[in-house]
Amino acid sequence: MLIVVSYDIPNDKRRGKVLKALKSYGEWMQYSVFECNLTKEQYLKLRNRLDKIINYQEDSIRFYTLCDDCKEKIDRIGGTQPRDESVFII
Amino acid sequence: MLIVVSYDIPNDKRRGKVLKALKSYGEWMQYSVFECNLTKEQYLKLRNRLDKIINYQEDSIRFYTLCDDCKEKIDRIGGTQPRDESVFII
Repeated sequence: MLIVVSYDIPNDKRRGKVLKALKSYGEWMQYSVFECNLTKEQYLKLRNRLDKIINYQEDSIRFYTLCDDCKEKIDRIGGTQPRDESVFII
Repeated sequence: MLIVVSYDIPNDKRRGKVLKALKSYGEWMQYSVFECNLTKEQYLKLRNRLDKIINYQEDSIRFYTLCDDCKEKIDRIGGTQPRDESVFII
């Protein structure tokens, strides 16, 4: 399943950790948005890892699960996503 | 239908215009993420309005349509969304 992960993490250090975690699970689409193709198990593992990083008062992470139909309807206007060549490991 | 709109707009002035437009169509969930309950017609109207604001080289806006099933699965960890009391007009 495709999971769109968007995050608001004001603290640089925590945001860096979240970014690092997400890079090993998905593709960086926008400054604070990733798209991750995950099994249920991988999703829970990712969620759990992020849950340990964030500060519940300051940070917010949202997870949008997209079925195949919704995935087909993804639309965008404007430029390319942030490019980053780090290796993709799960 | 629910449309999740996420945006990367480095330029303050353009980001302000996009924010203003989105505020009249949906709810501000995270710094650069809105959730909008829209008809097809409203969606096209919003998309068109945003398309006129952005710079195609620098800016990026993504639209994720969520069906009722996917809407049910929205998940989040962490704090509250950005609060803003502006009036909600469509």
